Amino acid sequence: MEVIDVIPLVSGIIALLCAVGLTIYIRKKPAGTEKMKEISNYIYRGALAFLNEEYKIISVFVVIVAILLFALSRVTDIPWQTSIAFLVGAFFSALAGNIGMRIATTANARAAEASKKGLQKGLTVAFSSGAVMGLSVVGLGILGLSIFYLIYYKEAAAILFGFGFGASSIALFARVGGGIYTKSADVGADLVGKVEAGIPEDDPRNPAVIADNVGDNVGDVAGMGADLFESYVDSIISGMSLGIILSFAYGHIYPLLIAALGIISSIVAMVFVKARNPYTALRNGLFGSAIIFAILAGLVTYWLIKDMNPYYAIIAGLVDGLIIGVSTEYFTSHQRKPARIIAEASQTGPATNILQGMSMGMLSTVIPIVSTAIAMVLAYQFANFYGVALAAIGMLSTLGISLATDCYGPVADNAAGISEMAGLGEEIRKRTEQLDAVGNTTAAMGKGFAIGSAAITALALIFTFVTRVKQYDPNVNIALTNPNLVAGLFIGGMLPFIFSALTLGAVGRTAEKMVNEVRRQFRELGILEGKGKPDYEGCIRIATRGALREMIVPSLLAVVIPVVIGIWDYKGALVGLLAGSTVTGFLLAIFLANAGGAWDNAKKYIEEGHLGGKGSDAHKAAVIGDTVGDPCKDTSGPSLNILIKLMSIVSLVFLPLFASLH
Amino acid sequence: MEVIDVIPLVSGIIALLCAVGLTIYIRKKPAGTEKMKEISNYIYRGALAFLNEEYKIISVFVVIVAILLFALSRVTDIPWQTSIAFLVGAFFSALAGNIGMRIATTANARAAEASKKGLQKGLTVAFSSGAVMGLSVVGLGILGLSIFYLIYYKEAAAILFGFGFGASSIALFARVGGGIYTKSADVGADLVGKVEAGIPEDDPRNPAVIADNVGDNVGDVAGMGADLFESYVDSIISGMSLGIILSFAYGHIYPLLIAALGIISSIVAMVFVKARNPYTALRNGLFGSAIIFAILAGLVTYWLIKDMNPYYAIIAGLVDGLIIGVSTEYFTSHQRKPARIIAEASQTGPATNILQGMSMGMLSTVIPIVSTAIAMVLAYQFANFYGVALAAIGMLSTLGISLATDCYGPVADNAAGISEMAGLGEEIRKRTEQLDAVGNTTAAMGKGFAIGSAAITALALIFTFVTRVKQYDPNVNIALTNPNLVAGLFIGGMLPFIFSALTLGAVGRTAEKMVNEVRRQFRELGILEGKGKPDYEGCIRIATRGALREMIVPSLLAVVIPVVIGIWDYKGALVGLLAGSTVTGFLLAIFLANAGGAWDNAKKYIEEGHLGGKGSDAHKAAVIGDTVGDPCKDTSGPSLNILIKLMSIVSLVFLPLFASLH
Repeated sequence: MEVIDVIPLVSGIIALLCAVGLTIYIRKKPAGTEKMKEISNYIYRGALAFLNEEYKIISVFVVIVAILLFALSRVTDIPWQTSIAFLVGAFFSALAGNIGMRIATTANARAAEASKKGLQKGLTVAFSSGAVMGLSVVGLGILGLSIFYLIYYKEAAAILFGFGFGASSIALFARVGGGIYTKSADVGADLVGKVEAGIPEDDPRNPAVIADNVGDNVGDVAGMGADLFESYVDSIISGMSLGIILSFAYGHIYPLLIAALGIISSIVAMVFVKARNPYTALRNGLFGSAIIFAILAGLVTYWLIKDMNPYYAIIAGLVDGLIIGVSTEYFTSHQRKPARIIAEASQTGPATNILQGMSMGMLSTVIPIVSTAIAMVLAYQFANFYGVALAAIGMLSTLGISLATDCYGPVADNAAGISEMAGLGEEIRKRTEQLDAVGNTTAAMGKGFAIGSAAITALALIFTFVTRVKQYDPNVNIALTNPNLVAGLFIGGMLPFIFSALTLGAVGRTAEKMVNEVRRQFRELGILEGKGKPDYEGCIRIATRGALREMIVPSLLAVVIPVVIGIWDYKGALVGLLAGSTVTGFLLAIFLANAGGAWDNAKKYIEEGHLGGKGSDAHKAAVIGDTVGDPCKDTSGPSLNILIKLMSIVSLVFLPLFASLH
Repeated sequence: MEVIDVIPLVSGIIALLCAVGLTIYIRKKPAGTEKMKEISNYIYRGALAFLNEEYKIISVFVVIVAILLFALSRVTDIPWQTSIAFLVGAFFSALAGNIGMRIATTANARAAEASKKGLQKGLTVAFSSGAVMGLSVVGLGILGLSIFYLIYYKEAAAILFGFGFGASSIALFARVGGGIYTKSADVGADLVGKVEAGIPEDDPRNPAVIADNVGDNVGDVAGMGADLFESYVDSIISGMSLGIILSFAYGHIYPLLIAALGIISSIVAMVFVKARNPYTALRNGLFGSAIIFAILAGLVTYWLIKDMNPYYAIIAGLVDGLIIGVSTEYFTSHQRKPARIIAEASQTGPATNILQGMSMGMLSTVIPIVSTAIAMVLAYQFANFYGVALAAIGMLSTLGISLATDCYGPVADNAAGISEMAGLGEEIRKRTEQLDAVGNTTAAMGKGFAIGSAAITALALIFTFVTRVKQYDPNVNIALTNPNLVAGLFIGGMLPFIFSALTLGAVGRTAEKMVNEVRRQFRELGILEGKGKPDYEGCIRIATRGALREMIVPSLLAVVIPVVIGIWDYKGALVGLLAGSTVTGFLLAIFLANAGGAWDNAKKYIEEGHLGGKGSDAHKAAVIGDTVGDPCKDTSGPSLNILIKLMSIVSLVFLPLFASLH
């Protein structure tokens, strides 16, 4: 064993130690008044209640799949360790999500309390909490991969598909279930509270307000974290696998090493997160870490393998990620033209608002698609398929800090909610809202980044799949003249539409139950007349049950369809299926996420006082657009990230089964 | 020359003679009162005014392209006759559209007048007018192809790509320009007339009412006709080309012959269009012609080539078309569950209405996609790529009658409008509205059919393209492991999104101008107070100019992008581009068309008195959904049909150019 073999493990341990340190720092901060503690506690308990219920369902699924994998390892070439790796991958992903949720729901009141002393103090607490999540994800991710690597060395890659599959399974349920939870709570709270009863956002009289705040954590912390944990480990696994199969120098360890450098860069850059303006602070952190990483990776590549081509592939991915982030920011920010055009269209009513939002969302696909296509072609020129995997790793290298900025969002959002509910007064509320506004922008950028990284990771996985299929059959026909492949392309292309249809419908159904429950509480408990207290747990129960019930069908589809198609024709139809779903999944995810973000910010733009401001007809139209956009950007869009990666990793895990049947 | 060589020509002449006979029959019918004649005349003149303006722009484009093609024929392998074929194709398509528009705007008042004597009489006139269009399209289509075939025999196929390109060019402008025209007029008329001023649909005081009625013809007659003319000739051309290259028995004439049988079947089946219930009558005609065709084609195939495999491929396409029609009917009819679910979601406001509509539209992609994928795989099993082209021909074989039922729609719609505007009284209005309601259902089915046939025709063209590329380079790498091809797949997949974004935006912008014009007329002319008359031509001018201005950018994109990508890498990236755009174009077109149809019929369902009926909050929400759906189903969705076919035919025409550059 050489020194470079243990560097990844060490970097993972460092990341986790930093996370522990930050946790201790946050816990020491005062949590504010009794009222603040009470509200924060409600959110904390609601979030854990959801996670516990979710884990029950997931564990059934995970145990069944693990047994199935072990059984298959007896009759096919699937290594028996795949089953163990699957369990570990699922456990590590769940653990990261759990840590993130706990710290986020611990930090919210503390961030609000710290804001009393100034914007900067509030930012530090909220960002520290995001950093705990970011570092836990990359730390646990690289730790898990390193352990298998150190035990099985070059054999690890094949086993690790199981690890990726485990991570994907958790991500699937977290994104789909979490997405349904967060938006049914949000839509329910808004439709009855804001629209019908006319009480403000985050009013403690709204029975769905706690569920709504829980939802922010469930969706944007646990969901986002599991999504990116999956992309992170999948890209590294496909890099290791392709590096070995295609015999690149140090191909087995280079991807892990690059990821380790990314962790170090993220930690160093976290120091940068100090600036007067919170947005500048976060942006400096993101770009700073990218620059540090680019320098470190260049030096290490030169020192280790002399050939700089793999490094160029990594940079192609890194730059692609930054371009996608900037494009997303442009298309969703309330300070840019697209959101303003939508806001102006609101003046002629909700229909024109919706149409302009759809139009802008569709238009916003250009830059990410073209940029990713170019990055892929370049990465391939530099280092074949291995280069594509390296591009994915490059894009995700600074995940530690970029996830920190994402997970900062819901903490700031909750802090603003707590300020409102606990009555901290105008000034503190304004400060926390300022933190929240920055969080909205970083959240939108984070979503674009999550989609882009999912797409390029899925591409890397597809190329890994094809490369491995060729090991079974060197003459495999994956030309576009193979009709089964074209049929797969069409059916694969359709799946993101079906998946989105199901998740949009699920939000609609659960939100309807929430609406009825909130209406019932208002009617029966006399909350608005000040006679009774709202029953927060009733609403939490509805969101939890609805989310868990509704997540099952789409989740099973995502696992079962590639297996069925693979059993039919894994050499043609399945390859087409994976490519088709990645193309439309990528497009639809960007469309849904950016349209949703732009609708949201068009409303915010009007609320700032433009075009008639709050209460005007234009504002009412914009609120409708925002309500349409909510499940698009927070449920259906993000769920597609998982769909495209999961189907590829499922195909990789079950490939020996398919081969044994033909 | 054998007898079978002239059968197609003869069938084309018969179709045109029938069209002439029906025209004489319609012209002899009384056009009703002076008021009715006046209104019909307004619509007639408005429609021709638009066509004339449109032709001016198109002829510039057509002449430039023809000169370019001729010039290229001097320096590449492009046959010089391609340029002539291009001009003839464009002229025939425009001629068919012109005939259809003239007869539809002649028949509308006559159908209203005939309705006075009974529903059946009204149906006969309206359907006869649709039949004139249907027969003109298939007659001119097969006539044009036959003439080239009789002159150049087996050499004709390569030349005829030019004919297809000419047809595509007209279709492009007709669909995009017509789609923008019809929906900006419709949205403008509704937003100010119905919503703001509270006057009913088709009220003669609404200045945009004539533009709205013109729009129905521009979009659903000229646009739909040109779209299907293109699919029709493209599928036959690709069949002839593949039949020759792949050396199938009678491969050069069999596709034309099959098309001729379809024409005969359509004419025979038109006799069936007699039943008490208009919907049953039209459905009997459609299914009747399919059965007759299936029998005739089976007999002729057995007699001519003994081998029944090509026939099975044809039947696969025919059945696929019927399945798509039935699926579309289910997902859009106001008597079915999807539209009702959307109607119910309207009770919780416009946002839930929009979300359910999007969800249903996405879900509605399953049957058409899976059915077409299966039809393609089967057709390939039966007769290789030639089978795929035959499947497209099979689906389009009975176009004569299916287009008749489509083009019946706008005539019935106009008849209802004229009854209202000319004050024909309650009973006649109800009758014409009954005719119109059936027209809405057949129009929705027609849209589904147009999309499905465009997709399978595009597939046939792609396979033709690949087959011809292989003639230049037998070792071409069109595997999914070619990164340029994958990049093409992504960029191609993106184009339908961009195209839809541009057309949706165009409707928004033009509708806004229309809204302002109608508001201005109401304000300045004192129309509502009965002091002044509306200036219909002002609104027609705005719709015409807006449509023509806005159609240019998306149209040029559709032509220029495949040429640019082809010059870069026609063997890899261009193949990917065509496949990617066909997959997402097919999906997005179904999504947009069916969501739009379902929103429309959810509104109609409420207007029938359900869930509170007209004027209720649910109705208001449903009207918003309908307004969102209008440009989706009548502008953006149908335009995608053209995009996917056009890019393939452009690639075929310019292939010799690409090859000469590499």
